[in-house]
Amino acid sequence: MQHRTAREIRHRNRFSLLRAVYAADGHTSRQELAAQTGLSFASVGNMIAELLDVGVLTELGHDANGIGRPRAKLAANPDRGLLVGVDTAETTVHVDVFDLAMTVRRSVEVPIDPDATDPPAIADLIAATVTDLVGDDGDAVLGAGVIVPGPVEPTGGVSLFSPYWSWKGVPFRGLLTERLPYRLYLDNPLKASTVAELWFGAGREIEDLVVVTLRSGVGVGIAVDGTLLRGVTNTAGEWGHMVLLPRGRTCRCGRRGCVEAYIGAPGIAHTLRELDPASPLFSSDPLTTVAAIAAARDQEVAQAVIRRTGEHLGIAVANLINLVNPRTIVFGDSVAGYLGEALLEIARPIIAEYALGDPYQAVTLQLSGLRHNPVSLGAATFALEGFLADSDTFGSVSARRAKPGK
Amino acid sequence: MQHRTAREIRHRNRFSLLRAVYAADGHTSRQELAAQTGLSFASVGNMIAELLDVGVLTELGHDANGIGRPRAKLAANPDRGLLVGVDTAETTVHVDVFDLAMTVRRSVEVPIDPDATDPPAIADLIAATVTDLVGDDGDAVLGAGVIVPGPVEPTGGVSLFSPYWSWKGVPFRGLLTERLPYRLYLDNPLKASTVAELWFGAGREIEDLVVVTLRSGVGVGIAVDGTLLRGVTNTAGEWGHMVLLPRGRTCRCGRRGCVEAYIGAPGIAHTLRELDPASPLFSSDPLTTVAAIAAARDQEVAQAVIRRTGEHLGIAVANLINLVNPRTIVFGDSVAGYLGEALLEIARPIIAEYALGDPYQAVTLQLSGLRHNPVSLGAATFALEGFLADSDTFGSVSARRAKPGK
Repeated sequence: MQHRTAREIRHRNRFSLLRAVYAADGHTSRQELAAQTGLSFASVGNMIAELLDVGVLTELGHDANGIGRPRAKLAANPDRGLLVGVDTAETTVHVDVFDLAMTVRRSVEVPIDPDATDPPAIADLIAATVTDLVGDDGDAVLGAGVIVPGPVEPTGGVSLFSPYWSWKGVPFRGLLTERLPYRLYLDNPLKASTVAELWFGAGREIEDLVVVTLRSGVGVGIAVDGTLLRGVTNTAGEWGHMVLLPRGRTCRCGRRGCVEAYIGAPGIAHTLRELDPASPLFSSDPLTTVAAIAAARDQEVAQAVIRRTGEHLGIAVANLINLVNPRTIVFGDSVAGYLGEALLEIARPIIAEYALGDPYQAVTLQLSGLRHNPVSLGAATFALEGFLADSDTFGSVSARRAKPGK
Repeated sequence: MQHRTAREIRHRNRFSLLRAVYAADGHTSRQELAAQTGLSFASVGNMIAELLDVGVLTELGHDANGIGRPRAKLAANPDRGLLVGVDTAETTVHVDVFDLAMTVRRSVEVPIDPDATDPPAIADLIAATVTDLVGDDGDAVLGAGVIVPGPVEPTGGVSLFSPYWSWKGVPFRGLLTERLPYRLYLDNPLKASTVAELWFGAGREIEDLVVVTLRSGVGVGIAVDGTLLRGVTNTAGEWGHMVLLPRGRTCRCGRRGCVEAYIGAPGIAHTLRELDPASPLFSSDPLTTVAAIAAARDQEVAQAVIRRTGEHLGIAVANLINLVNPRTIVFGDSVAGYLGEALLEIARPIIAEYALGDPYQAVTLQLSGLRHNPVSLGAATFALEGFLADSDTFGSVSARRAKPGK
């Protein structure tokens, strides 16, 4: 039934502690971590000893404030290893290599050949790109998170369905395992962005939040009490396929009137086409079109596109507030990067009109503060979580530590 | 941050155990409870000893299966005390008195005078009705749950807003405390129905479910891993005020196009009025009108009302599936009682059309199996949870038990 195992609780606590270490950016001590996490000083002490033992944490010297004994400052140890984050989008594969302080060490983005989108071809492309970027440092890689569009079953590593290519039930992690010698974590972009925000963004302070991903596809991740709501098939958060306008535009999912058909990058380009079919702002790539609209913000047609898109966004966000009642909604990813401020300016009064009073008063709307691609960062975070939950990482240490007490 | 206190874990485990006892309906043993809850046999044993000590559980004799030693059968002890559940609806106050086996002992429903709906008048009516129904058994009452329509802040016991009366920020539990000598728990109908389902309905087997309340107002309760999602102001689940049709019907909340304006009882009556303004099926009370529509199911106009309502329900439920990805959706309360089967028959193909493939395949849609008013049952369940979490109930026992070990 509903209780957690001791092991799950241990992992949660370890994640909490390390999240607090990252949030403090090198300026924290055992005392402060205990206060911030609400864990006992003793258990914080034990966990830190363990994390120092396995090299995940490092001591940065001491903070002498003149009173009492100096307090050791703690940080994640960048030299402990590398994490790989792969964001497979509609037209590109973006790969980042992070150190354990979650600093990007290397980055690359390669185009996807539109004629080579069958699963083995995409797996080949990802594997070659990762192998090339990692270079001679393969032994340092602690794990790799790979994000593919559409619903994903993470335990089995299966891509259930791809919105861009005709994939259905593809055991994609298996294909990658044949090509890459790392521990691999497969998931979808909405989940990745939310985990990135929980560890490194707004979720460091707020544990009840919704992360809205606005890129070619759109959707949300819902975090309740710091935990990602996955749903029973890991497809919770498909806000982009809620019906906004019954019998409205055909969405690329095949249904009609979906949120995504209006506020995803192709939806925004569609609105431009309705308003001015010959607009010079068009390009073949919808995201480039969105960038052009953002750059042409002083033109009437761009303003009209932003107004319509913002109105649709407003209603869809108000619906989310009424159903989920979160503390914070964070808007992120590429479309938010180009048009976030402008869309929120239009959406805010619509949200105020359609959201109920109390949840509206309680919610904060903000743009993501993550400076990096949230999807590849989230991908690497899944690999980090996997490494931290892995008994190979801690097993021998725990066994060693358990002995003196017994 | 995100971890729970030992105390919260203890309460959760105690709730789990007692839920399993209720589900077994008198036919369970320590062995079976340990298997069902996933708790260790030792901790199940300790909790049962404690619950027997305080009289919440009782032993019903032994099950001798011929092998090994006989196993004691356990059940909730009906004689331990009474719980009161109050469902304050738009036009009536419904009160039930339950014993601790959650059997209804007494029940009454009284009309609300439409000219006496200020908070003290409603508090007077509730207090008089409860006092009358409890009679000489006041000393046996362990607590009373009181449900009022609209958003409620349960910790402070404040009705934030009433959709029927012009209440705003009413400290209603305080008003009741002046009139009733019981521990009082204030909450809203969506939360109550969901808790009732978790303890005594579909939630006994499925821990990721959505409970759809269909009465005059409509809305949902979302349970994740057996825990009610309250949202940051306890207003999560206001599905009834998600926009179904932008610029559609005016809802009684003042907004336009809300789900509730189409599928709440007044919304269904509204649809009848659009189709046949002079229909003999009308009565002054929308719920009576719904009952008349249900009874006239062979008439064309009734079928047309059901079809339109079912189509609206279908889209609104598909949206819920796409965002929340639950295992089960349970439809309950008065409108579901009259029209549930008929509406689901229309809604199912619409849901299949608008929900995404994987979450649709994973979800089960069902009518509530609760034989009783889910809101008053849920109200009493809040009182039960309060009693089980109360240190007065267990404190002295725990202290006593702790001693020999120390």
